Amino acid sequence: MSLMLQEIHEQPEAIRRTLDQNAAQVSALCEEIKRREIRMVTIAGRGTSDHAAILGRYLFEVVNGIPASLAASSVLTMYGTWPRVDSSLVIGISQSGESREVVEVLQRSREMGALTLGITNCADSGVANTAEHVLLLHAGPEKSVAATKTYTATLAALYSIVAGLPGNHPLAEGLASKVAQVPELISKVLGMTAEIEQRMERYRFMKKCIVVSRGLNMATAYETALKMCETGYIVARGFSAANLMHGPVASVDPGSTAFLFAPAGRVLESLRQTARSLDERGIEQVVVSSDPDVLGVAATPVRIPFQVDEVVSPFVYVVAGQLMAHALAVGRGCDPDHPRGLQKVTITR
Amino acid sequence: MSLMLQEIHEQPEAIRRTLDQNAAQVSALCEEIKRREIRMVTIAGRGTSDHAAILGRYLFEVVNGIPASLAASSVLTMYGTWPRVDSSLVIGISQSGESREVVEVLQRSREMGALTLGITNCADSGVANTAEHVLLLHAGPEKSVAATKTYTATLAALYSIVAGLPGNHPLAEGLASKVAQVPELISKVLGMTAEIEQRMERYRFMKKCIVVSRGLNMATAYETALKMCETGYIVARGFSAANLMHGPVASVDPGSTAFLFAPAGRVLESLRQTARSLDERGIEQVVVSSDPDVLGVAATPVRIPFQVDEVVSPFVYVVAGQLMAHALAVGRGCDPDHPRGLQKVTITR
Repeated sequence: MSLMLQEIHEQPEAIRRTLDQNAAQVSALCEEIKRREIRMVTIAGRGTSDHAAILGRYLFEVVNGIPASLAASSVLTMYGTWPRVDSSLVIGISQSGESREVVEVLQRSREMGALTLGITNCADSGVANTAEHVLLLHAGPEKSVAATKTYTATLAALYSIVAGLPGNHPLAEGLASKVAQVPELISKVLGMTAEIEQRMERYRFMKKCIVVSRGLNMATAYETALKMCETGYIVARGFSAANLMHGPVASVDPGSTAFLFAPAGRVLESLRQTARSLDERGIEQVVVSSDPDVLGVAATPVRIPFQVDEVVSPFVYVVAGQLMAHALAVGRGCDPDHPRGLQKVTITR
Repeated sequence: MSLMLQEIHEQPEAIRRTLDQNAAQVSALCEEIKRREIRMVTIAGRGTSDHAAILGRYLFEVVNGIPASLAASSVLTMYGTWPRVDSSLVIGISQSGESREVVEVLQRSREMGALTLGITNCADSGVANTAEHVLLLHAGPEKSVAATKTYTATLAALYSIVAGLPGNHPLAEGLASKVAQVPELISKVLGMTAEIEQRMERYRFMKKCIVVSRGLNMATAYETALKMCETGYIVARGFSAANLMHGPVASVDPGSTAFLFAPAGRVLESLRQTARSLDERGIEQVVVSSDPDVLGVAATPVRIPFQVDEVVSPFVYVVAGQLMAHALAVGRGCDPDHPRGLQKVTITR
């Protein structure tokens, strides 16, 4: 069994530990966010960490009503300056804690008076030593180059902050207890491992594909596409359904493949339309959903056979995505643990 | 001659008109930004307008030190809520002025007390009628589905705001007069039309490619890739050099093609490294630059034979990108003015 598949299966435990062992830190952080009247959140991360940032951004805006953005780290590393972040929470995410630009962003933001938070899997690291607040992931060492358990553990950390802050959107209701049930939900998806492997057989010789979702699961589409790129060398590109239809769809050939994540909830109707529109263009679809309508459009339906609350659906759907990417890589004879030309820690300057 | 090529060549005049005819509006807007102590900028747009937003975001942060972000319109259109933007400038960009979600973002932000600005080419449009401040592009009707002159005219509008606000970064120095010279610079690139057509011959049968730059020109890479997708049906994907090296590079096959925009200035050294690294992986490069070093790595050098100040380089480089995309489309027998399956106004819900 590959390290990647082992680590995919460690996720329920990793998330449980991350939630349990950070409870005090999360509540101290949330107190300080309220006390300091934080007006904006900026999140820095590259690759998989950037995808966690994308989802975190949606959560802060939708659930808490706090304007949030993804840091443009190059503003600091290339242009040597940084905007006024004194009333901001600046979050730096790095599995290894050694992503140099994330450390630099935290350092500079802290000097400028921002409230800083580091999220990392490594206690003795640049990120952990630089940020004022730290949430450790407790995911255990991640040995596969393709990050899986640190992605969902990072999400768990972000969700616990969002759940600890005031929110009056319907998605805020009972959020903490929904997050507490995530490990169980993930165990259920993991039960689909063999089925997903079988479903992916058909795509053994697929060279390229697009991966599509929207809203909270846009990050799921990006992250699944990245896993497919890294481990199976598939030219996979993640899209928000809205952006796809705004131009790039022209370059998607009839006869090519789209993976669509269509969870129940507020984005479902929009994704049903996307599925129909892709179908009309002759694009074959792999659809992950529990909705019979949208599954009906799929050449390859991957049915999620249990109820998933919209707000925590990104955990469930990304694990399905990880299993698909892993199955594709192994089916193609690739070693998912040692992708060509990638290292675990990428130095970005 | 295609409409697209005609409109590419209309850019110097379109920008001149946009700058001249908005001078009073820009100065009124800048006064209000200062008076109301705007602390943050959020920019909404899809497709090409989103690429203008990406560059605008860098400029506000680097030149003015104001935290800026790209709006996640789905927060409003899918989740029915909007973060607290009362101390923000919210900018909505839409060529037609009828992008429904951009109009909704402006409307809701204005109701919440934000300072709102619409940038559009159509005076009697949803965007123009909704925003408190409006900058009209004066680009003339854009008939080609592939937006070109409205992209650079939008950039001109954004640059004039950035130049009208306080900034103490070196890139702020003499910015207004540098922007005034942009039409001339673009005329010089337009003089390269025949040369660029000839250089693109080699790529007649290219099916996919990546387009890479960094910092201010990350938007140039994204926009050029989109033009290639839309008009030549090439599977082209834009990357920041930093993100490319963080995973996706694994799926770039040896023997495939990268287009690299490497303008002089603060990102050049980083892009020289990217060029060397792509070269070591056996990836053929088309390099647009005036730097002999990085041009030396290229299979196809596209040398910019005149001086371009770093801060305005996105105008020059994107016009080279438009000319490349147009030459590729025509060379492949595609009609760049009527891409399959795209309409000029995309309704996003």
